[in-house]
Amino acid sequence: MPIITLTTDFGIKDHFVSAVKGAIYTELPDATIVDISHEISPFHITEAAYIIQNAYKSFPKGSIHIIGIDSELNPENKHIAVKLDDHYFICANNGLISLIASEFRPEKIVEINIHDAIGTNFPVLDVFVAVACHIARGGTLEVVGKSISDIKLIKGITPIVNVGDKQIVGSIIYIDNYGNLITNINRKLFEDVGKGRKFKITARSAVFDTIYERYSDAINFDIEKTKREEDGKKLAIFNSSGYLELAIYKSNPKTVGGASSLFGLYFRDTVSITFE
Amino acid sequence: MPIITLTTDFGIKDHFVSAVKGAIYTELPDATIVDISHEISPFHITEAAYIIQNAYKSFPKGSIHIIGIDSELNPENKHIAVKLDDHYFICANNGLISLIASEFRPEKIVEINIHDAIGTNFPVLDVFVAVACHIARGGTLEVVGKSISDIKLIKGITPIVNVGDKQIVGSIIYIDNYGNLITNINRKLFEDVGKGRKFKITARSAVFDTIYERYSDAINFDIEKTKREEDGKKLAIFNSSGYLELAIYKSNPKTVGGASSLFGLYFRDTVSITFE
Amino acid sequence: MPIITLTTDFGIKDHFVSAVKGAIYTELPDATIVDISHEISPFHITEAAYIIQNAYKSFPKGSIHIIGIDSELNPENKHIAVKLDDHYFICANNGLISLIASEFRPEKIVEINIHDAIGTNFPVLDVFVAVACHIARGGTLEVVGKSISDIKLIKGITPIVNVGDKQIVGSIIYIDNYGNLITNINRKLFEDVGKGRKFKITARSAVFDTIYERYSDAINFDIEKTKREEDGKKLAIFNSSGYLELAIYKSNPKTVGGASSLFGLYFRDTVSITFE
Repeated sequence: MPIITLTTDFGIKDHFVSAVKGAIYTELPDATIVDISHEISPFHITEAAYIIQNAYKSFPKGSIHIIGIDSELNPENKHIAVKLDDHYFICANNGLISLIASEFRPEKIVEINIHDAIGTNFPVLDVFVAVACHIARGGTLEVVGKSISDIKLIKGITPIVNVGDKQIVGSIIYIDNYGNLITNINRKLFEDVGKGRKFKITARSAVFDTIYERYSDAINFDIEKTKREEDGKKLAIFNSSGYLELAIYKSNPKTVGGASSLFGLYFRDTVSITFE
Repeated sequence: MPIITLTTDFGIKDHFVSAVKGAIYTELPDATIVDISHEISPFHITEAAYIIQNAYKSFPKGSIHIIGIDSELNPENKHIAVKLDDHYFICANNGLISLIASEFRPEKIVEINIHDAIGTNFPVLDVFVAVACHIARGGTLEVVGKSISDIKLIKGITPIVNVGDKQIVGSIIYIDNYGNLITNINRKLFEDVGKGRKFKITARSAVFDTIYERYSDAINFDIEKTKREEDGKKLAIFNSSGYLELAIYKSNPKTVGGASSLFGLYFRDTVSITFE
Repeated sequence: MPIITLTTDFGIKDHFVSAVKGAIYTELPDATIVDISHEISPFHITEAAYIIQNAYKSFPKGSIHIIGIDSELNPENKHIAVKLDDHYFICANNGLISLIASEFRPEKIVEINIHDAIGTNFPVLDVFVAVACHIARGGTLEVVGKSISDIKLIKGITPIVNVGDKQIVGSIIYIDNYGNLITNINRKLFEDVGKGRKFKITARSAVFDTIYERYSDAINFDIEKTKREEDGKKLAIFNSSGYLELAIYKSNPKTVGGASSLFGLYFRDTVSITFE
């Protein structure tokens, strides 16, 4: 039986997440349910997209992803089920899928129409669970909705390449648990534009001229531990998701601070790369 | 095999929750364990009751709910196992069940007597797990305790209806992940007292004259998006648990604030409904 | 199939934890995965050791524990898989195992050598999952690494016993969800040194002359509830892990404060026991 994952902005204190799990187990006692995240900032579609995009590919093909972010049904926010990259996504048609699907064309999109006449204000429980269990049992999308050809598009913040390929201007799209700053500049764009030239990354007052593959590559292990620069060292890296990340080596945002607080950089702030 | 759920004030950093899960899996390798919440405020019985009450009904009949809130055995706090609404609850006899059982009479109550002579200060691990696994294997409550006829009663904060049915005076019983304020006034009480009359809800300086079914019903989608009042709009709603809730449309308590911080209303504060 | 547990400093918002779970389920669809904790303070090896030490013993023999703390491969931080007390641990050779293994000699230690030529900055996903699944399928440690005889040792903060056995000087090693202070003084050391003598525990300005078995033992239930000292009462106890703990009865660190904030005591602060 396929895995069902949950991504919401419900938090983990309230009863919402467990009510959803209880409802799934009631329909499918042998379900495997995995939490992706319930700590998405409320109604933050781009944050949810970043997290789901980097999580879903680790799951087996055929997995079913319930996304409970800004999911109340209204005239501008219909419910959809989408087959994309051999995974299923059940969510509101609020642009989130367009952010995930930038690389892939959805194989099938249906607008869910199994709702009762009276609306619910807990659609993840009352609608998405039923759709997920239907798919998990091998049901087709056509049974739970009518095919539509397009999803709502929202443009994530995308990097700009200046004329003459002298500069990429990107921005911070996510700050992780270590306070590290993830930008929207990925390795492919960097290599396509830079073509091996020397470069300088500038983000407020922080400057970098190397992008490492691993955090440890920023440390010179030939120097004796007590003498080398290590704790608090700033570095740029391509992270495990392939994005340029500005980091502090072994940072703890709750004590000494992370890259975000130390560089004074936050969501949507600018990061630029200038090539020689 | 029945589902075993966990509701505690242990938090998710310490080893407590995982120790309990490890002990259950040691006895029942095929167990299905679901977290309801581990973020209950320490020793907060009414908060736990609100969360469990709204979560347990989504689970299949026969589910077993371990509740680790204020559960140390002492002369005033015995351990009980209760069958209620076809679910099993294992907890301390500290009044929590009386809050959950306001609608239902427990079918059976036993005072647990499987304790060793020497006390434990981790009864969830050392006592409740054994009881839960016993029930999960199909064992009866009589084997793990002696039948008692009554549980400790505590009165939750209940709304008052003023003479002549002119007014309901309730209070805030819970603040959710979005900062929304949940009151102890449910739809039935509102309809029984109000009998369709016009009304005014007052909570400190916030006033409402409509109760919506969905958050989106507060928004006029006929008006163009950029011109309509939407973000930060205040509204009253019957939430998915059937309680009157005072909310801010699409609020984020960590940034712009939620209903609690914006209205200046907190746990136990008064909310009144006056009918014409 | 053995249980696989996860202990990391990833937090629960980012995609890291779910990516690891997805990868395990992709290899082993019937896996049982249990979170021990993802809220370890970043790179805090002794904190992780305290939590794992107290959690792993509740799991069945043969369980596999993935530990993602400070796990990037570098010349000073190799990856190891260890069989210890009939459990398997997969982690970096950063001293963490030496803290867990103070009581037990590892039965087998291998340095993992299944890495690709190019390094990864997400070794839990790219290396530890493969090793865990190999062991879960019944594979031997020798297949994934070469035997080594020793692990990196780090000395946790251990208590000092003063000449003449007049005094034990220990320190705070962990602060739990209730704000209670856990020391590195365990029951055996206390009994071996104290030999039944009277004693005085001193921690900054807080003084204790009794160590209880249960929190409730500090309360005199013969006195009427409204007249007795109860809320906020300070006490010393041997906690469920066998360590001396300084606590406040029914404390809530978010409201009235816990032992840590009320006594002004934090990680590494001194606690001493003087015997008569």
